[in-house]
Amino acid sequence: MRAALFGGKGRIELGQRPDPKVQGPRDAVVRVELGCVCGSDLWYYRGESPHDMGPIGHEFIGVVEDTGEEVRNIKSGDFVVAPFTYNDGTCPHCRAGWTANCAAGGSFGNGGMDGGQGEAVRVPFSDSTLVKVPKSGLSDDTMRSLLTLSDVMCTGHHAAVSAGVKKGDVVCVVGDGAVGLCAIIAAGRLGAGRIIAMSRNPPRQRLARTFGATDILPERSDEAVKEVMDMTNGIGVDAALECVGTGESMNMAFAVARPGSVVGAIGAPHGVVVPIDKVIFRDIGLHGGVSPVRRYIPELLDDVLEGRINPGLVFDYVTDLDGIKQAYIEMDERRAVKSLLRIGTI
Amino acid sequence: MRAALFGGKGRIELGQRPDPKVQGPRDAVVRVELGCVCGSDLWYYRGESPHDMGPIGHEFIGVVEDTGEEVRNIKSGDFVVAPFTYNDGTCPHCRAGWTANCAAGGSFGNGGMDGGQGEAVRVPFSDSTLVKVPKSGLSDDTMRSLLTLSDVMCTGHHAAVSAGVKKGDVVCVVGDGAVGLCAIIAAGRLGAGRIIAMSRNPPRQRLARTFGATDILPERSDEAVKEVMDMTNGIGVDAALECVGTGESMNMAFAVARPGSVVGAIGAPHGVVVPIDKVIFRDIGLHGGVSPVRRYIPELLDDVLEGRINPGLVFDYVTDLDGIKQAYIEMDERRAVKSLLRIGTI
Repeated sequence: MRAALFGGKGRIELGQRPDPKVQGPRDAVVRVELGCVCGSDLWYYRGESPHDMGPIGHEFIGVVEDTGEEVRNIKSGDFVVAPFTYNDGTCPHCRAGWTANCAAGGSFGNGGMDGGQGEAVRVPFSDSTLVKVPKSGLSDDTMRSLLTLSDVMCTGHHAAVSAGVKKGDVVCVVGDGAVGLCAIIAAGRLGAGRIIAMSRNPPRQRLARTFGATDILPERSDEAVKEVMDMTNGIGVDAALECVGTGESMNMAFAVARPGSVVGAIGAPHGVVVPIDKVIFRDIGLHGGVSPVRRYIPELLDDVLEGRINPGLVFDYVTDLDGIKQAYIEMDERRAVKSLLRIGTI
Repeated sequence: MRAALFGGKGRIELGQRPDPKVQGPRDAVVRVELGCVCGSDLWYYRGESPHDMGPIGHEFIGVVEDTGEEVRNIKSGDFVVAPFTYNDGTCPHCRAGWTANCAAGGSFGNGGMDGGQGEAVRVPFSDSTLVKVPKSGLSDDTMRSLLTLSDVMCTGHHAAVSAGVKKGDVVCVVGDGAVGLCAIIAAGRLGAGRIIAMSRNPPRQRLARTFGATDILPERSDEAVKEVMDMTNGIGVDAALECVGTGESMNMAFAVARPGSVVGAIGAPHGVVVPIDKVIFRDIGLHGGVSPVRRYIPELLDDVLEGRINPGLVFDYVTDLDGIKQAYIEMDERRAVKSLLRIGTI
């Protein structure tokens, strides 16, 4: 089969991989319909994080092609959303709902596992990993939004849930990448009364508005913090969502958070030093991390299927596997928020 | 009046201060009955934190001597518990319950404010700061426990509340100081099913048992972590309470916390670097800080008055203002968990 392969910093190639087969009784093989490039893929693409050579891409939706003998919940022909991590569903962490921390789990497109930027994927623990979705009558918009449930929509949701966003809250979202934009949707969905988005990029500003941001701040750093504090009468926001992962973004989130609130952080950390004085002397908490996507998909699925949320709008560059290099370049050069890959035949 | 005064590293003297008077319409003057020395007093005593010269001590209970004209909830002769911070009760942070972060507040025994290690204290915002307690028939044990509501019991409670301790949880308490010991009480009070206390000091180990610890670990660092992981079948604890404030204690708390849990941290930070990789890749949160004592006193008060909890047992050295130097020395040299000061006449 054809699959994108990582060959080191700046090197993404379309290559060949063996067609995946069911190897164990709990496996499934999924033929990928839609895949995409994640902001976190850029870290290794840019040489800023390590990554195994070989298959890449951790987000995909597709059709089940084959299943192992113990698989009960899905069957060949089913249309499924895959969380970006697979999980056994039975370990203590899974049972507690922390599926991305599964003791036996891992993520797609890493360590030699098939990736979502390829034609097919072997899925371990498929019964407890994949979520079946009714296929008939799905529009292209809905398909795109379903794909975001693999990661970015559920990750934005995790930021909002971790920060404890509730009805009427004033929320500040730091970061205008796909996850930050999805965090705006998530905050609104949880009832936020005012959503302040930090963005200086006009197309992303428009998308932030579409997703429910009530205020857009193009300022950065101290100026942005001052602006938020002015907007909140010096109180700070009820929830700050850190959707970048840099030291600057973490400091901004803590600087605008009111005492007693929690910074919901989901950015992979690069140079982050948590301002412990603000944790202790202003009682600002920190929670978040790798999203337990498998837990969240069912609760977000209806909103996608019934069109109440439309996170698929984050895809603003569309290509196929032949265009994989350009899919990365468009995001690396910040022309695209998120690149969609049409891989299957639907 | 007589009051303990800080004169620089290692220098605590009993000196004279002007008798406090009501200065504003919301003030009260409280004649101190019991005061004490806090573990956090040792930071400046040892020269490890800055502190203003002059009055010290932030924990006290006593009798109201005079009140300003706008004071309604308390009157002369009332017996009161003082939180270690005063708060106006009307600012947005107070209204949200974060009384220690009051925009107009501060703490006793700092910045020239009268301290609890003296004969009397002027209390600003006395209506919203002091908590009236029925005085008649209180035993000495109860009086001692009431004093812990000024800080250590409510701070231990804050660690447990911040970590979300709930019925049946396995909890690990890092730190066997007065706050750590009170955190054991707090965890038990919130329903913890197993409480692992880290302590290598036999008297503190006994007190930990008395307060409800089910397991005592004398090991430190990696050995202690390994022990906790073995005890929890490799899962980690449902809540880790960080009651020290050093880099080592914070790392231990994060190392034993299970994915998705929250480290409840209340130690004043000295050399703490939050392990951000554990925050993000194991979804372990961090919350806590300066305890909103004024909010907690009412909910803990009945348990003290009715003898269901007995945090006053943390006082294992008793003296009076004349013995103030020794009160510090006993704690500095770790002979005493916490030094009680009998200041009044009750």
